[in-house]
Amino acid sequence: MRICIIGFGSVGQGVARVFTMKKEIIKKDYGLDINLVAAADSSGAAICPDGLNPDLLLETKKVTGKVSKYPEYGVAGLSGMDILDQVDYDCLIEVTPTNIEDGEPARLHMLKAMNEGKDVVTSNKGPLALTFSELADAARENNVQFKYEASVGGAMPIINFAHETLSGCEIKSIYGILNGTTNYILSRMAKEGSSYDQTLNEAQEMGIAETDPTQDVEGEDAACKVVILANSLMNMNVTYDDVEVKGISQITPESITLAKKEGYLIKLIGEVSPDSLEVSPRLVKEGSPFAVEGTLNVATLKTDLADDVTVVGRGAGSIETASAILSDIISIWKMKK
Amino acid sequence: MRICIIGFGSVGQGVARVFTMKKEIIKKDYGLDINLVAAADSSGAAICPDGLNPDLLLETKKVTGKVSKYPEYGVAGLSGMDILDQVDYDCLIEVTPTNIEDGEPARLHMLKAMNEGKDVVTSNKGPLALTFSELADAARENNVQFKYEASVGGAMPIINFAHETLSGCEIKSIYGILNGTTNYILSRMAKEGSSYDQTLNEAQEMGIAETDPTQDVEGEDAACKVVILANSLMNMNVTYDDVEVKGISQITPESITLAKKEGYLIKLIGEVSPDSLEVSPRLVKEGSPFAVEGTLNVATLKTDLADDVTVVGRGAGSIETASAILSDIISIWKMKK
Repeated sequence: MRICIIGFGSVGQGVARVFTMKKEIIKKDYGLDINLVAAADSSGAAICPDGLNPDLLLETKKVTGKVSKYPEYGVAGLSGMDILDQVDYDCLIEVTPTNIEDGEPARLHMLKAMNEGKDVVTSNKGPLALTFSELADAARENNVQFKYEASVGGAMPIINFAHETLSGCEIKSIYGILNGTTNYILSRMAKEGSSYDQTLNEAQEMGIAETDPTQDVEGEDAACKVVILANSLMNMNVTYDDVEVKGISQITPESITLAKKEGYLIKLIGEVSPDSLEVSPRLVKEGSPFAVEGTLNVATLKTDLADDVTVVGRGAGSIETASAILSDIISIWKMKK
Repeated sequence: MRICIIGFGSVGQGVARVFTMKKEIIKKDYGLDINLVAAADSSGAAICPDGLNPDLLLETKKVTGKVSKYPEYGVAGLSGMDILDQVDYDCLIEVTPTNIEDGEPARLHMLKAMNEGKDVVTSNKGPLALTFSELADAARENNVQFKYEASVGGAMPIINFAHETLSGCEIKSIYGILNGTTNYILSRMAKEGSSYDQTLNEAQEMGIAETDPTQDVEGEDAACKVVILANSLMNMNVTYDDVEVKGISQITPESITLAKKEGYLIKLIGEVSPDSLEVSPRLVKEGSPFAVEGTLNVATLKTDLADDVTVVGRGAGSIETASAILSDIISIWKMKK
């Protein structure tokens, strides 16, 4: 399988690292030969039909900051669309930064790949939250695979879990802690009795919260994931604007203490149900699967047959997110066989 | 797909109920036409090549206690082996009661089916805990499918989850609360400060613990599941005797209180790792995915790429367990296509 990666930040580099780690075992276990024929970042690309060396690619990026400096096969100044025009590949890994304004350039990259008969794997929430049905339709019309496990909760594999493992069940609704940063902040506030601002500062110093934390703390990131889950697991046809969103910046230590006295915790919960698309702070019971601390993500699927089934996993991380992308690649390969 | 169910207790009846509920949707979604050609209990069988009516079968069992009283197509006095000789079928659902002494008669039923080229789905822990490799080898040699999701934790779908959804990851070790009854007892003791004996009595009155609770409270049930997970997810070749087992009957309210003061709970944990096969009471942190209450089951897979991934679900229940069997059937069907 000839693979083209567009975007070579934390996730793209994780994918390259995972290819190195897993190349042999995947060949042995699944008969799948992964051939990385192109990798692109904002500087340009490295392109080699016989396959790039992932280690050399990572080293080049680390030292120079640019994949286009890759020895012999580096090309500066190409755009993502240029690369998709020039490279022969089977599967696009679209891992450019999430843009929740208009989903570009990821949306155009994915549509172009699909229209040219290529499979697509992505971790990119933006285009999925804005134009899910356009992308799903393009995949269907062109008879290609479109997989996006990594877009929701990194290494909390909820989408393939519902599609594959719970194939006999209907999903009635979904509740989840879909953002690790806010879970970290709320857990610390509950433990230390500290204020929101103080805890946010601390999380920023530790690199858990971003310098501009808006997307996380105002619930926008979780809302993107709500949209993706609604479309992919419950056949809804919704976009970002359909979600009611409330963040955690108004939560006080007093309200957390009050909840705790009654055996509850406050968590930022995303809900997908036929009547409601919502992200908001809610009470969850101590001793329930939602009472997890730290940066963990959780999602509970309410099903018709299996009752509630819950998955807990790391919501972020370079290698963790790349593992979800690798599972998608293997799943595409299995479908082709 | 022509299906033969052997065993028509709680799980077998759940399967029949699920067939009624899901027949149309499964045909529509997967093109799979489920045809229940035989169902057996200790009284004999109901056999009809054109398909039994699951509702009539359930009604017959409810009113008479015997599937052999099924109108027109009931046959009294047949053994499981007789039925497998007489019936034309594609897939055996083996759901007779678990026997952890010698695994019979389930072991013989499954081996016979496999040797005659039939796929097998089971919820039966006994033969899996005693002779896993014999059954796995027979499936491989006869090139048939062998699925047993329901044998570990009913509707906590951990096996297919690891095989399908986490296909890119290596499982390094597994930790789990694999028995719902003991989780219920320990959770109640922690909450109420009550003694083990008192809480066990209460659980028995509620039907959560059996009259003879040995298999649950002494860790035998969890140990069977440890064996199944070790063989199926970590390619070990082990049986029940390889597991060190300690139950919960010695746990005092004082030890639970002491743990709680330090932010810990006591849970009965099954561990599968290269160095250890063990069931024993252990401390788990409050706020961790293991801190769940009630009869829930939990399993955490420690993986090389995705870090820790946890699944939480109902460990028992007629329909819940049947849902795992249905997922196995759909998975077999997908492999055949």
